[in-house]
Amino acid sequence: MDGIIGSNVLTQVAFIVRDVEQARIKFAEFLGVSPPAVVDGGKFEITGTQYQGKPAPDANCRMAFFDVGPQVQIELIQPNGAKSVWQDYLDEHGEGLHHIAFGVKGMDDKIRASEKFGLSCVQRGKYGNGGGEYAYLDARKDLKCYIELLENYSPA
Amino acid sequence: MDGIIGSNVLTQVAFIVRDVEQARIKFAEFLGVSPPAVVDGGKFEITGTQYQGKPAPDANCRMAFFDVGPQVQIELIQPNGAKSVWQDYLDEHGEGLHHIAFGVKGMDDKIRASEKFGLSCVQRGKYGNGGGEYAYLDARKDLKCYIELLENYSPA
Repeated sequence: MDGIIGSNVLTQVAFIVRDVEQARIKFAEFLGVSPPAVVDGGKFEITGTQYQGKPAPDANCRMAFFDVGPQVQIELIQPNGAKSVWQDYLDEHGEGLHHIAFGVKGMDDKIRASEKFGLSCVQRGKYGNGGGEYAYLDARKDLKCYIELLENYSPA
Repeated sequence: MDGIIGSNVLTQVAFIVRDVEQARIKFAEFLGVSPPAVVDGGKFEITGTQYQGKPAPDANCRMAFFDVGPQVQIELIQPNGAKSVWQDYLDEHGEGLHHIAFGVKGMDDKIRASEKFGLSCVQRGKYGNGGGEYAYLDARKDLKCYIELLENYSPA
């Protein structure tokens, strides 16, 4: 079967954190790796971030990534204070596990299929380097968390 | 580097749910797979569950597992109402992402190393079939979630 998004391979497990500089040090020590670089979410001119269906030029975050398997990463996300799916979580719940991610092909179709399944797209945009796009689906009722869809424009 | 537990390969991402029968149907539909069997946590005579350092003969759960990559599973856990790390989460937070898991060798040593790192062991026991053991570490301050260590007794 294809499922709703045509993929069932987990690619990321993501945390919302208050201080990504500090959190990445602790994760690195626990995992036994060097602390990864902190990456900026990118400029709105590239990301075109949409939050709740409207342009969100101020929404941004800083991230750090750890490989924790051949295809899986842990992602740490520090929201920047502007309204976003990241900041909402921090304000409502504090730090913690926020979403799991899957790679897809054909973002618009996969968002539509997810909406038909009962999920709602709460934020979407392009990666800060323009190399792909993401969408966050509110799946809290049925799948107990947010789901992120990732589409990489680079050839696999 | 070895890190604190000698592993940095993620093996499970686990959710606390109120109704594992219902949740597994939704996850199966989303992932495009058949609904997996629901597995009982097992009898205390085998599990020897310890919660907060004391025997917890009533603590139990029902689980369902999905393969979401070559080495990674999604785990759904429905607590049974007795005090446990699972029930505590449901009572305090409701349903949601609870822990991430890593395989280890030498459970007692790895728990000690984790405690030295600043985590605390809040629950441990054997699998319901006696084939291995688990320990939950409260890592919410530094790693923003619970961490589960899993040691499988079977030869790899």
